[in-house]
Amino acid sequence: MEINIKEVLRDYKERELNEELIEALKDAARKCRLWALTMTTAAKSGHIGGSLSSMEMYLLIYGLANLTPQNARSTDRDHVVISHGHTSPGAYAALAYYGFIDAEEVMALFRKGGSPFPGHVEREVPGIDWSSGNLGQGLAAGVGFALAKKAKKSKDHVFVLMGDGEQVKGQVAEARRVAVKNALDNITVLVDWNDIQISGKLEEVMPFNIVSLWEADGWKVYEADGHDFASIYRVVRQAMEDDLPSVVLCRTTMGKGVSFMEGTPDFHGKAASEEQYKKAVMELGGTPELLDRAKVSRIQMAGKKTIESLRKDFGVFVELGKPRTYLPDVKTDCRSAFGEALMDIGLANYKIPGRTPILVFDCDLAGSVKVNGFAKSCPDWFFEMGIQEHATATVAGAASCGGVVSVWADFGVFGLTEVYNQQRLNDINETNLKLILTHIGLDVGEDGKTHQCIDYIGLMRNMFGWKLVLPADPNQTDRVVRWAIGSHGNVCVAMGRSKVPVITKEDGTCYYDEEYEFEYGKSDLLRDGTDGAILCCGHMVYRAIEAWEKLKAKGISVKIFNVSAPLAIDKATIEEATKTGLVVTYEDHHWRSGLGSIVAEKMLELGCVSKFVKLGVHRYGDSGTAEEVISLMGLSPDNLVEVIESNLK
Amino acid sequence: MEINIKEVLRDYKERELNEELIEALKDAARKCRLWALTMTTAAKSGHIGGSLSSMEMYLLIYGLANLTPQNARSTDRDHVVISHGHTSPGAYAALAYYGFIDAEEVMALFRKGGSPFPGHVEREVPGIDWSSGNLGQGLAAGVGFALAKKAKKSKDHVFVLMGDGEQVKGQVAEARRVAVKNALDNITVLVDWNDIQISGKLEEVMPFNIVSLWEADGWKVYEADGHDFASIYRVVRQAMEDDLPSVVLCRTTMGKGVSFMEGTPDFHGKAASEEQYKKAVMELGGTPELLDRAKVSRIQMAGKKTIESLRKDFGVFVELGKPRTYLPDVKTDCRSAFGEALMDIGLANYKIPGRTPILVFDCDLAGSVKVNGFAKSCPDWFFEMGIQEHATATVAGAASCGGVVSVWADFGVFGLTEVYNQQRLNDINETNLKLILTHIGLDVGEDGKTHQCIDYIGLMRNMFGWKLVLPADPNQTDRVVRWAIGSHGNVCVAMGRSKVPVITKEDGTCYYDEEYEFEYGKSDLLRDGTDGAILCCGHMVYRAIEAWEKLKAKGISVKIFNVSAPLAIDKATIEEATKTGLVVTYEDHHWRSGLGSIVAEKMLELGCVSKFVKLGVHRYGDSGTAEEVISLMGLSPDNLVEVIESNLK
Repeated sequence: MEINIKEVLRDYKERELNEELIEALKDAARKCRLWALTMTTAAKSGHIGGSLSSMEMYLLIYGLANLTPQNARSTDRDHVVISHGHTSPGAYAALAYYGFIDAEEVMALFRKGGSPFPGHVEREVPGIDWSSGNLGQGLAAGVGFALAKKAKKSKDHVFVLMGDGEQVKGQVAEARRVAVKNALDNITVLVDWNDIQISGKLEEVMPFNIVSLWEADGWKVYEADGHDFASIYRVVRQAMEDDLPSVVLCRTTMGKGVSFMEGTPDFHGKAASEEQYKKAVMELGGTPELLDRAKVSRIQMAGKKTIESLRKDFGVFVELGKPRTYLPDVKTDCRSAFGEALMDIGLANYKIPGRTPILVFDCDLAGSVKVNGFAKSCPDWFFEMGIQEHATATVAGAASCGGVVSVWADFGVFGLTEVYNQQRLNDINETNLKLILTHIGLDVGEDGKTHQCIDYIGLMRNMFGWKLVLPADPNQTDRVVRWAIGSHGNVCVAMGRSKVPVITKEDGTCYYDEEYEFEYGKSDLLRDGTDGAILCCGHMVYRAIEAWEKLKAKGISVKIFNVSAPLAIDKATIEEATKTGLVVTYEDHHWRSGLGSIVAEKMLELGCVSKFVKLGVHRYGDSGTAEEVISLMGLSPDNLVEVIESNLK
Repeated sequence: MEINIKEVLRDYKERELNEELIEALKDAARKCRLWALTMTTAAKSGHIGGSLSSMEMYLLIYGLANLTPQNARSTDRDHVVISHGHTSPGAYAALAYYGFIDAEEVMALFRKGGSPFPGHVEREVPGIDWSSGNLGQGLAAGVGFALAKKAKKSKDHVFVLMGDGEQVKGQVAEARRVAVKNALDNITVLVDWNDIQISGKLEEVMPFNIVSLWEADGWKVYEADGHDFASIYRVVRQAMEDDLPSVVLCRTTMGKGVSFMEGTPDFHGKAASEEQYKKAVMELGGTPELLDRAKVSRIQMAGKKTIESLRKDFGVFVELGKPRTYLPDVKTDCRSAFGEALMDIGLANYKIPGRTPILVFDCDLAGSVKVNGFAKSCPDWFFEMGIQEHATATVAGAASCGGVVSVWADFGVFGLTEVYNQQRLNDINETNLKLILTHIGLDVGEDGKTHQCIDYIGLMRNMFGWKLVLPADPNQTDRVVRWAIGSHGNVCVAMGRSKVPVITKEDGTCYYDEEYEFEYGKSDLLRDGTDGAILCCGHMVYRAIEAWEKLKAKGISVKIFNVSAPLAIDKATIEEATKTGLVVTYEDHHWRSGLGSIVAEKMLELGCVSKFVKLGVHRYGDSGTAEEVISLMGLSPDNLVEVIESNLK
């Protein structure tokens, strides 16, 4: 009779696996190899070579981890991150073995359009904690989960399984350093060291010394025989007891178990043909009947989506504190208003039982992005990551899937432009990250074009889940930051560097006053008029008001809309604006991909046609003060006045 | 009398600097420190601390390098890359000392909007070989120059100057490995090891072992006293003789030379006030009169742009071979047509005297992106970079500024999405990179959403210089690839994974036949009609033709435009399309940021209004065959037929 490996391992205290467990695991491995082979041949694609070489690692770790079909949907348990996501057949086979998913179903539906078993592991599948496939990202995700566990005072463990080819990706080294700096003794990494990547042997493709790399960053390095359960278990157990982050290099054979797949890159990214499959199955003591069944089911089960999505609210509970109101005589920058709001929220929750930890990440710019106050008030929740933006994006994203709220504040070019793909992967993983971008647009001080983030809308437009908000002044910033931290999902709040005046009504009182509540997607009519409409956001808003005053003095009256959420601009705003006969978008964003582009598209879609002018950034900017740079780009209030006057002629 | 340091060093053979040189350099350093202080205080901003700590490194390297005001505009000379671009005051002072630029001018105009002296070093300034400032990129740029020199059989040398805080950035480690793999004995790196970054001491911000990191990747590591010219010279000379890439860790003091700036992060990113300036100048034996002059000139010289731009054609000479024509009975993929054209061009130029080397870069996907043929035919021009896309983007970009043509082929998500900022920096540097993206859109095989590059237009739209072309079939691919390699500037050619039919005229002959010449920005009317117009590109074109046939059978006639260069869509196409009364854009790109968005904007701008429908990707895609995934997204030819029919009702 088969023993229940997970049940036995749960209470297993020995340092060595007993014979019974070893035999059971070996039998499981044989079975899982057949399943992995079957699903790839049925799908006519998939990465079988690495799946076979990782099989013992998968079975042992998923057997050992406090991660079960029952607790997979909570965050209070062990986490397992698979970084070499292309070895999904191996992972799915092991998950099927332990009852997370159904073996027959995955063999039939692997890589089938619309099915729940994609080609690279994805978070919808129970037991998969991070959607990966873009290599070199998984360690940072694991570090994120481990930080979240520490913040939650949890004793649970994080396992990360990696390939060897991806070791050279820079983000891996960044993540290693974060783990060591934070003394993460709750993370254990296993590397499938089969020495082969798609293009050949590691030392031919890109030579590196795997042991030296991990040791140079301060990790404890172990080696194990990756096809010997006793060896992996012994070493992993020892590694888990370390007070350092540790890695187990598992010596393996690519394509293990199938003679003609062993030690060759040929089956790295290719399935066995049916002919080859028969031979392989025979070597593993199975029968090809598995494949016949899978092929039939592949047609019969088409379109079946049996897995309930894992995507959901993470059960965050944070107190958002009392909003601050900045009076019209105050001139401060939105960054500072963010910093104050963040500190308020931090203090309202720090070390209070039952509250969700709020982890704040910084990449060596704490003073500029104004997280210093939080860092001082809530030191255990503050993480200085150094100049390592790629790892930071992923660490912060994954941590938020581990049951904390993540806040990362950085310059626009670093928090988004440099790590666009990491933010895309956070979107795919439906994380709960609050990304605060400062120094956006041309408002970066004198740093010049390399530091000017003129693409924050253009980048966010390419994704599906991110919300983007550009507050116009410190009051709106305060409300938006509290709203962002309190609401679920990925939210980006973007702002410039300079001091801006408080936006007021015509009577001189605060526009965003104590009564104001932020509503995502709602634009605000700040000034009324009939000759035209200016649509703008962020630090261009007060400039638009300056222009409005000048136009007024000339007898020209225009509307000003603060479009604080350009990705979700409302129909009413477009309609009201076009009714004036002249729509002008005014932004220090790339003129081709920003607010102007969105408004143009919406106008056409809604059939709201009027004269339309886009004012935006039409070349890389200069190095100078914000006012100089904005003027040289033709974006000063005077430029705006001129454009409106000339279009009314 | 001052000696001319560069002239003396040119013929200097000794292993130790003589006293005269040391004294001259010391005097230069004192002068340059005053200049750097003056320019930052005059600008009221700038990174003075690191400029003072790097000063001896700058003076020695710019003194030693075969890089002069006379040869700075050629590529046949030594190259100097500054990675810590924020220390521009130090670099500019040294360049002024050696006559590259004028000291009075830079002191007056540093960080002045519209002036030629930006806050981070930029390539317009003679002596600056790479615009940097986003940290961690410079080593890869240096490696690119060094590879170009090797390919050109040049004996010239590359120097890279780096900060210490940026050592932890992952891209640095990637670049190190590329240097070692290629045995680059022509690169010497100097690190300004002052132990302080913006947020504090290195070990507080993000601990790392600098020696171990370089050694782990196989570099030879030296140490020098970074404020002692004799020490730096001695060690750099020795390092240059190594047959390994080598790094000189220069022990320095942040803010060196000004008592109150030494050893503190306070002046990392801040200029001295005028009060502090006076004290600093006194310590350095100067007078504050320098600043008075600079302040006056800052106003008088405003708007002065005295430097001729370095941006220009690199004098490339390559033979483009004879175009291949694929007949209508052939079904192949555009990737293979690219691979064939690339191999043709390679063979037509390889090892032929006078021809510009063509360097082809791959990130462990040579078989999939079809550069294997080139790799076999032209092995010395082929570079396997491993899974290190960030370094690859910068290496390839910089190499092309060193007088070669760079071609990098990769999946869309890796060659653009993952390295968007590196491609932006290549744009800013006006490199000559040919970026071939395969597996774009939903046509990636079964890899699923993490591998679907649905943002190639949305990303390219955010930049100014990149050209983007999507060929519709193997014939157009062939012509586009030859055109791209032969023309100047950054060009991206994007294509799917699957086999596509040859696009034909209605009479069944090749549309892109032997007579065809590609013209950037010109759309092609593939099919005529009167009831509507389909605008599409790439692998959606043949699907549009399928739909056209089906519509024809139903008595509906539409135009099909192949918009191969969506960023440069022509007015005539928009006008002709809208005249039909129904414009449908058809793409497997994000529906919010791709061709549809561009067309909508153009329509509004040109006042060409008609019914308008966008068909595109409106959620992350499935994992399945291309046909499955495209159908599930509602983008099959049948879907297109339905949409057109329903809009004609």
